[in-house]
Amino acid sequence: MTIAFEPMRSLIYVHCAKEKYRHKLQHWLYFHHIPESMAQFEPYVSKYAYYWVLPVPEDGARFGTRNHNITEHYWLVNPMNPQLKVKALCEYMPPAAFVWQGHLPDTPEALQGEMLQGDDARSTGREGIAGTIPFVWVFVPMWWEEEFKGKMRTLQDGCNYRWQFVIKYPEGVSKEEGDKWLFTEVIPAFQNMPQVNRILTSSIMQHVNQTPYQRLLEIWFDGPDEWHEAVTVETAKIKKPVWASEPCFPYLKPQTEIVSMFVSDMPGDEHYAQYRGYIPMR
Amino acid sequence: MTIAFEPMRSLIYVHCAKEKYRHKLQHWLYFHHIPESMAQFEPYVSKYAYYWVLPVPEDGARFGTRNHNITEHYWLVNPMNPQLKVKALCEYMPPAAFVWQGHLPDTPEALQGEMLQGDDARSTGREGIAGTIPFVWVFVPMWWEEEFKGKMRTLQDGCNYRWQFVIKYPEGVSKEEGDKWLFTEVIPAFQNMPQVNRILTSSIMQHVNQTPYQRLLEIWFDGPDEWHEAVTVETAKIKKPVWASEPCFPYLKPQTEIVSMFVSDMPGDEHYAQYRGYIPMR
Amino acid sequence: MTIAFEPMRSLIYVHCAKEKYRHKLQHWLYFHHIPESMAQFEPYVSKYAYYWVLPVPEDGARFGTRNHNITEHYWLVNPMNPQLKVKALCEYMPPAAFVWQGHLPDTPEALQGEMLQGDDARSTGREGIAGTIPFVWVFVPMWWEEEFKGKMRTLQDGCNYRWQFVIKYPEGVSKEEGDKWLFTEVIPAFQNMPQVNRILTSSIMQHVNQTPYQRLLEIWFDGPDEWHEAVTVETAKIKKPVWASEPCFPYLKPQTEIVSMFVSDMPGDEHYAQYRGYIPMR
Amino acid sequence: MTIAFEPMRSLIYVHCAKEKYRHKLQHWLYFHHIPESMAQFEPYVSKYAYYWVLPVPEDGARFGTRNHNITEHYWLVNPMNPQLKVKALCEYMPPAAFVWQGHLPDTPEALQGEMLQGDDARSTGREGIAGTIPFVWVFVPMWWEEEFKGKMRTLQDGCNYRWQFVIKYPEGVSKEEGDKWLFTEVIPAFQNMPQVNRILTSSIMQHVNQTPYQRLLEIWFDGPDEWHEAVTVETAKIKKPVWASEPCFPYLKPQTEIVSMFVSDMPGDEHYAQYRGYIPMR
Amino acid sequence: MTIAFEPMRSLIYVHCAKEKYRHKLQHWLYFHHIPESMAQFEPYVSKYAYYWVLPVPEDGARFGTRNHNITEHYWLVNPMNPQLKVKALCEYMPPAAFVWQGHLPDTPEALQGEMLQGDDARSTGREGIAGTIPFVWVFVPMWWEEEFKGKMRTLQDGCNYRWQFVIKYPEGVSKEEGDKWLFTEVIPAFQNMPQVNRILTSSIMQHVNQTPYQRLLEIWFDGPDEWHEAVTVETAKIKKPVWASEPCFPYLKPQTEIVSMFVSDMPGDEHYAQYRGYIPMR
Amino acid sequence: MTIAFEPMRSLIYVHCAKEKYRHKLQHWLYFHHIPESMAQFEPYVSKYAYYWVLPVPEDGARFGTRNHNITEHYWLVNPMNPQLKVKALCEYMPPAAFVWQGHLPDTPEALQGEMLQGDDARSTGREGIAGTIPFVWVFVPMWWEEEFKGKMRTLQDGCNYRWQFVIKYPEGVSKEEGDKWLFTEVIPAFQNMPQVNRILTSSIMQHVNQTPYQRLLEIWFDGPDEWHEAVTVETAKIKKPVWASEPCFPYLKPQTEIVSMFVSDMPGDEHYAQYRGYIPMR
Repeated sequence: MTIAFEPMRSLIYVHCAKEKYRHKLQHWLYFHHIPESMAQFEPYVSKYAYYWVLPVPEDGARFGTRNHNITEHYWLVNPMNPQLKVKALCEYMPPAAFVWQGHLPDTPEALQGEMLQGDDARSTGREGIAGTIPFVWVFVPMWWEEEFKGKMRTLQDGCNYRWQFVIKYPEGVSKEEGDKWLFTEVIPAFQNMPQVNRILTSSIMQHVNQTPYQRLLEIWFDGPDEWHEAVTVETAKIKKPVWASEPCFPYLKPQTEIVSMFVSDMPGDEHYAQYRGYIPMR
Repeated sequence: MTIAFEPMRSLIYVHCAKEKYRHKLQHWLYFHHIPESMAQFEPYVSKYAYYWVLPVPEDGARFGTRNHNITEHYWLVNPMNPQLKVKALCEYMPPAAFVWQGHLPDTPEALQGEMLQGDDARSTGREGIAGTIPFVWVFVPMWWEEEFKGKMRTLQDGCNYRWQFVIKYPEGVSKEEGDKWLFTEVIPAFQNMPQVNRILTSSIMQHVNQTPYQRLLEIWFDGPDEWHEAVTVETAKIKKPVWASEPCFPYLKPQTEIVSMFVSDMPGDEHYAQYRGYIPMR
Repeated sequence: MTIAFEPMRSLIYVHCAKEKYRHKLQHWLYFHHIPESMAQFEPYVSKYAYYWVLPVPEDGARFGTRNHNITEHYWLVNPMNPQLKVKALCEYMPPAAFVWQGHLPDTPEALQGEMLQGDDARSTGREGIAGTIPFVWVFVPMWWEEEFKGKMRTLQDGCNYRWQFVIKYPEGVSKEEGDKWLFTEVIPAFQNMPQVNRILTSSIMQHVNQTPYQRLLEIWFDGPDEWHEAVTVETAKIKKPVWASEPCFPYLKPQTEIVSMFVSDMPGDEHYAQYRGYIPMR
Repeated sequence: MTIAFEPMRSLIYVHCAKEKYRHKLQHWLYFHHIPESMAQFEPYVSKYAYYWVLPVPEDGARFGTRNHNITEHYWLVNPMNPQLKVKALCEYMPPAAFVWQGHLPDTPEALQGEMLQGDDARSTGREGIAGTIPFVWVFVPMWWEEEFKGKMRTLQDGCNYRWQFVIKYPEGVSKEEGDKWLFTEVIPAFQNMPQVNRILTSSIMQHVNQTPYQRLLEIWFDGPDEWHEAVTVETAKIKKPVWASEPCFPYLKPQTEIVSMFVSDMPGDEHYAQYRGYIPMR
Repeated sequence: MTIAFEPMRSLIYVHCAKEKYRHKLQHWLYFHHIPESMAQFEPYVSKYAYYWVLPVPEDGARFGTRNHNITEHYWLVNPMNPQLKVKALCEYMPPAAFVWQGHLPDTPEALQGEMLQGDDARSTGREGIAGTIPFVWVFVPMWWEEEFKGKMRTLQDGCNYRWQFVIKYPEGVSKEEGDKWLFTEVIPAFQNMPQVNRILTSSIMQHVNQTPYQRLLEIWFDGPDEWHEAVTVETAKIKKPVWASEPCFPYLKPQTEIVSMFVSDMPGDEHYAQYRGYIPMR
Repeated sequence: MTIAFEPMRSLIYVHCAKEKYRHKLQHWLYFHHIPESMAQFEPYVSKYAYYWVLPVPEDGARFGTRNHNITEHYWLVNPMNPQLKVKALCEYMPPAAFVWQGHLPDTPEALQGEMLQGDDARSTGREGIAGTIPFVWVFVPMWWEEEFKGKMRTLQDGCNYRWQFVIKYPEGVSKEEGDKWLFTEVIPAFQNMPQVNRILTSSIMQHVNQTPYQRLLEIWFDGPDEWHEAVTVETAKIKKPVWASEPCFPYLKPQTEIVSMFVSDMPGDEHYAQYRGYIPMR
């Protein structure tokens, strides 16, 4: 009956599959999902925020870019603990909301499916379901584990163009093997790039929810031009790993092996303090 | 194109017609109506609050008691001004919400009626529609007009049991005539009652929305026992007016000539500051 | 010097003993008690809410109904831990506040008693003190333990009329024995009733504060009529236990063996986000 | 020394000229501009909100689309009144912030210009300054003046894809003449389109700040596909005015004669209630 | 029954007469006075703030310095209008609160006086009551009327040490005569001082509440040293007026002819947004 | 990778070294430091408040008084845990901010030093750096450990003048030895003083951040006069310890062996609920 104290941060990478769904997805998130989520986890999630992503930069698709928002939670306990399974009310999750996010195929059959919940929702969009992208929900320690550049950077040093991404090494490549390449080839290369202001990384706690993604990174630039130059020109020096899934950097398959979001430092919506219902434009 | 500055307070007396509707009425008010109302009038209503009424005391029915809440608005302009007629979105007002409040008869026909809006909603429940009570929405000046007792009363002097009510003199009795009786018979009697701590009154601005109610009063007591003694025993001394609709005090027909609510001093919900969406119990 | 992480939810069932005390009890709660409570436990209670109960339905008294509010806390630590005993300021708890709630007899002697605090307050109203009802404060795990019906119910499925109650089997009946009857007779019967939409239960953590109550339940209906039919008609099929304290269902003594409250899904006051002082009606 | 009560709504159409400026523009708005604005006008602006625009749809450029946010104010007085001219602190408005919005040319000279303020800021980007777009700030009555379709539409009728735009008839065409075409040709055509759910319009109060824009409109669709079909296919039936600036609908020059933004119903940031400083992502 | 729209700002200069009263005065203000004030004027006061003053600088006494806080209101109507006279509850204003502020003499008789209210409170501490200082409450237009230096100053230009003061020319000197000296002697002198960054002034609307003070000024410095040098050294050049009450600058009698407060730019408490009851330190 | 649940309270005693720095220090705290701090620790600090101290009373210097504010945090984890070391953004901490607080000498060299962070900041002002005072940051259990008087005191018993201080016994005196004197000489003496209303103490958790301070105390009085009489007259009875650093009570060296702040019960700024950016006075 006891439950462990396990402070963790989780990140969900929300995508809007087609522009015609964007306002519908927003409505579902703000009218239904945010208050229902708060009702459920307010006592054991200490911060719940959305960060609005910046538009996908040129060549972003190669990096598995998504275009809606990063949903961030700070948990005091592991939400996958079976002790949390019974909920008075379950969240309203019509299949359409998963079609809009690209996790269910955009077909009449998918839309007529049953209400989703918990594990069912999270297992949508896994590889092999044509026309969908995986649901990305990763857990990391509450604090960043490692930093490689920009330790003293403050808000006064200028606005940051933050490239946040998760990676999963290809089938058959162990995390150790993949990380070896990352830490000896990739990170040193980025450390040396003049366009890079900051590098942060944490290992993903895959055991929490069995996500296939293995590592979270943030690399900061002054803006999208610097990012573009860094990832397309400067990365030429990075040695291609033998196990590369793709011919060029990042050598990982978009959406399944690398998923990226671009954010500013800007505060998004901290729902506990800022949510006040759905009050439309007059 | 100019609009006058007309600071006004309005009061709506909300009733729940049957207990089986109370949770439905609450849901409609808090899930749909409050955020939609704020969306509409936030720029020109300076305060929007609900006060939860105290249970109806013994013999309360004789005074046209209602049992749900007082909705209070503070307007900077007259909301009936035709310049306010076009609204981007209209409020979601299913007929059921008016059945629940007792303003439409509780019949299948009423429920299948059209969505209500504006004047249609406000004209529900007028006299002559069997089984319904009138929609009470009165406008008064932003400040009380007259006080007759308890001028120096502060919050430190004890909790108040506030009887707030609106009256309309019977058909054929002018406001002047009715008020004469009120000010020479009723108010002096209450002033002299030891149970009474405070008396306040304002004339209703009937021209704003053509409400038939003519006057708003508040008389304060220590509690329901003092109220009961005052209105049933002490009022025996009050001269019955020739035009009395009813055999005993208040000599007015409940719900159409007198409508009462009982409130404490307690703050209800000040929606601008306190509303944060509909976050149910876990 | 270390203290365990023990996330728990607690529920206090607040009653107003006489209507003449309702506004005084509200004042004490909102003017004195809420801010003082927040001052004390804000750092280690992650949510603090009040839910306003629905009026007592017909035949409710048989189920030990209370009529004021459910006070809910979400604790990160066990508040009974002796490490929490020293408080800079103690709460203002005049005996009258306990008379108003029915936990002290309504006598001059009780009112002249000493200021109550902590364990003294919580031990008021225990069985055997004539004319009083016990102080009900139960601790349960932060999450419901078991559910028996309505697992997929969402807010979109309609408003709920939630019957929340605690039970304590009669003297001499072990929890195991009582629960056996509950799980083999009572819960299956309610599962089969068409009026029932949802069943939830948790075992009360009696060791926390030595409460005699043993189990918390919630059974949801569409409204009070469905509840009434279920508990008076449908329960006829439930086998009377040999140890029954009362002749008919729930076979438990009101207030000491069963205490009930009726709530809607509606959010009450989440004090951390919504409390803004005591700002009375103008 | 008296000042008139003139409730008005104003709309600013904010654009981000290049994606590399988006995070800088956000920072300036949220770190500097919002709190400084609130400091200045909180006592006489009753609501201050930002609405995040939806991405520019296909063929949007023809309609003078902008891509950042709509800034909305509700004024109780005319902010151009000379009585408001003296401000204790003036707003921090570096020329760069106007380069980022496309109102100053993106040149070193522009960046080295003086701090902007008031009228200087508002007169940036007028026609004739190469490579810039005009600063759009229009005042309209607090309430929409006219509606042509969808009077009873509520939030329950589905999410809206709202096309909001301002127009200015070409040089030499009077407002009367232009409006005649609008009301007899354009609006009736849109009223008849099955893709259109709602039409709203108000005359711009040009005297307030001498804006050249003459009329504000909102036309609502289910989504961008319906909008696209309506404005590219259905508008073929609309008679081209003799004074057309452009060969096809809307027959107006983008950015100077028509400026468009696409918004959902979704609440943006209501700063008075939601702003809590600039708290960056961790 | 109509009331004029008269946007005004008012300033109250609160003093704590003896340090032994400071915590008592704070308690009265925060526990009793702020929520009671909001209850009363929330619908027609658009901003209500306290600014905590900086400690009195060297030689400050000569300028009639006060040491507690500036209370600021922004009114939409004239609060002295007789239409506002009736208040449901009056404010809790024990004589002690006025002794603590120095407006009643610190004697047992004063303390045993009656509860103060409205005009009685405001007329405390007028000249001639030994050992007291006048109650300073001045009304000015919502916007500063005139500025003489520092028009383009922004928050980015550095923190300001703001000397805010009200003046009243000596008995027998007309406002015109006094102002002539102010505008031709004093202000030009300050404009020329290198220590001065900003000068603002407004005429006090004496008709509102019959205050004897005639003019409000703010002169800004980098800090108290610059202020001290300016007012003690630099002012030597200012011509002494024939009507001087005092031998040296400001030539006015402290507390009755000049009352000063020193504030930073720092936000104090904006009560509508920030007040959340009286939650003491644990 | 796991981190322990260690609820702790920490207190920082902020001083303003010279009055000319007060407005600058306020600006740094409210404009830069509070939002940056919240950004960093909001997920694992459950309350973050500032308490404004009362002016230093007569003879306060002898007790190592400071004059700005007490910064209070409630931590769920030990912030010194190396797992917390990597922060996405570091706090903006210019050396000037430490000069203003008296932790760096007021010299050009100090001002030109590098940006401070973490341990560097906390180790400023240690003994031996001429003209500085130590940075006081102490961790104590979340709850007071011991109380010696006034156990039943409530907010209704009157305002408190709270003397909060930390002590460190002189070099060579063990905590045990020092505490023996404290508990057998000092506390009993204060318990017997009629001026004392409450005594609270906790042992400082020195291992958390290696602070030299050993014990936190609060002793409450009615006001500064009672405090003064108690500490100057009544303490004459307290036996001088052999290890006294100073000739009279408290026998400890100000600022390095005893540091005091005087606070009322009054709530300061609870930043999570009340911070809304830096919105200056108009």
